[in-house]
Amino acid sequence: MSQLFAGIDVGGTTIKSLIVDQGGNVLRTAAIPTHSSTSSQICRVAIELVQAHPEIASIGVVTPGVVDEDRGVVVYASNLDLDDAPVSAEVARATGRPTLLGHDGRSAGLAETTFGAGRGVRSSLLIPIGTGISAALCLHDHVWPGETFTAGEIGHVPAVIDGEPCACGQRGCLEVYASATGIARRYHQMGGPATSAREVEAHLGDHDIADRVWSDAVSALAFVLTHLTLSVDPGRIIIAGGLSNAGETLLAPLRLRMASMLAWRKPPETVVSELGGTAGQWGAAILACRANGSTDYLGWAP
Amino acid sequence: MSQLFAGIDVGGTTIKSLIVDQGGNVLRTAAIPTHSSTSSQICRVAIELVQAHPEIASIGVVTPGVVDEDRGVVVYASNLDLDDAPVSAEVARATGRPTLLGHDGRSAGLAETTFGAGRGVRSSLLIPIGTGISAALCLHDHVWPGETFTAGEIGHVPAVIDGEPCACGQRGCLEVYASATGIARRYHQMGGPATSAREVEAHLGDHDIADRVWSDAVSALAFVLTHLTLSVDPGRIIIAGGLSNAGETLLAPLRLRMASMLAWRKPPETVVSELGGTAGQWGAAILACRANGSTDYLGWAP
Repeated sequence: MSQLFAGIDVGGTTIKSLIVDQGGNVLRTAAIPTHSSTSSQICRVAIELVQAHPEIASIGVVTPGVVDEDRGVVVYASNLDLDDAPVSAEVARATGRPTLLGHDGRSAGLAETTFGAGRGVRSSLLIPIGTGISAALCLHDHVWPGETFTAGEIGHVPAVIDGEPCACGQRGCLEVYASATGIARRYHQMGGPATSAREVEAHLGDHDIADRVWSDAVSALAFVLTHLTLSVDPGRIIIAGGLSNAGETLLAPLRLRMASMLAWRKPPETVVSELGGTAGQWGAAILACRANGSTDYLGWAP
Repeated sequence: MSQLFAGIDVGGTTIKSLIVDQGGNVLRTAAIPTHSSTSSQICRVAIELVQAHPEIASIGVVTPGVVDEDRGVVVYASNLDLDDAPVSAEVARATGRPTLLGHDGRSAGLAETTFGAGRGVRSSLLIPIGTGISAALCLHDHVWPGETFTAGEIGHVPAVIDGEPCACGQRGCLEVYASATGIARRYHQMGGPATSAREVEAHLGDHDIADRVWSDAVSALAFVLTHLTLSVDPGRIIIAGGLSNAGETLLAPLRLRMASMLAWRKPPETVVSELGGTAGQWGAAILACRANGSTDYLGWAP
């Protein structure tokens, strides 16, 4: 009998799931709102998937927060009811299926680097830009989690010296200037009417404030990506998240700014995500594969 | 018969070599001046070592520059006569011994993380500060080389916006402010008599210019290490190179400055190198071990 793999992507508002076969064909997707007792809800979702599809061989679960992938524990997730939660053991016990836990951003990076925009290079940085900004450091076929499972927190690196205050308590953080939320907030603060980054983008070229806010965002992003290019030397930079919908409106000036800051080496190729919002689920499905000792995912092409 | 391993550390002025037994005991060290025909000189050094000690089972060679460790090729080394030089194949052919080539800084990081100041953590950054500044990203038991074998070029990340010009063509590079060379140069430019970073250190507390130059160096270093801490989340930061001789005079203010820039997480432990100038040779000896398929080096304690 052919085996199936289940991927579960737990977000602050939605739990998305995906069932794929060994060839990477999608049999079913689902999404339900996240409830307050997240840990037991994840188990219920997993049990329902296995009851509906007993051929499910193994399961992957991904969550935001501080995720200890070695122990399968969500150490802490601020917007979920998960605190030192041994999610992989709980799901494995509830379903009788081997289960691996991963971090949502890093797992998205794993999917993107395996069969998305990171194909063909040995390393890439996946940079989702939305409410916040983070980076998944995809090195060969693994994503580096960090010593304390907090690698990639580039939303809070100093991008502007003595810059505007950030909610985190620091000043001049990258997120303040370059997250979709930050772009909308700064535009509004400077007197602009728009309340979303997309609206700011729509006013580019005919509204000085929009131009300035966008340019500040590009500069801050280029500064931080220059640091990462010299430190990590990634083969490709992949922009994801809501702001990546701006496409070349973001990428073209970003490439120019980075090139101007890198006198003696070329910037890595900078592209937008291919998997978009499904990257987390696909990453969870890869973990499901790995939980079963399978490398079937190397042949998937979503 | 017990096996021996030979490590050869090729520098711009000196070629150092080390012969160790399977227990990591040093049988012999040597150093000779580097000549102009580096490639053939490395082979001659290796042949002499093997002739004197036929028990040498395998060889590790490390060099500066752009080193492709996968192919065993020095792609480019500005201060050596090496350009697309297949060093590992040449040494293996000349000696009949399996040979691995490594980058000197990354190999030093490998040694430091295996049995030096990086023991006991899963990851560390080895930061040599001398004429220049670089970083070896030691993640588990490997050092990340970068997609184009240029990871860790933190000497040229922008540490000061629109700062003083760097020889590389950019402005405000970390090296301009925080390398031993940069510290000495800035002190002299501001009217100080000293010509070495060590002399600047000796004037701290009784010479305003010395205080200012040192403080600028600490600030620039703290800024870049804050970026690296948030991006890579290393378990430990290990300062090496000539400037590490300043010890707590450098580390104490550096720790304070980093803590002030990291509002919501603790900085990683910051210490000085244990292996010092021998780290490169020891890294070469580890590569020799690996070239022979041995993990003996895991038990070494230099």
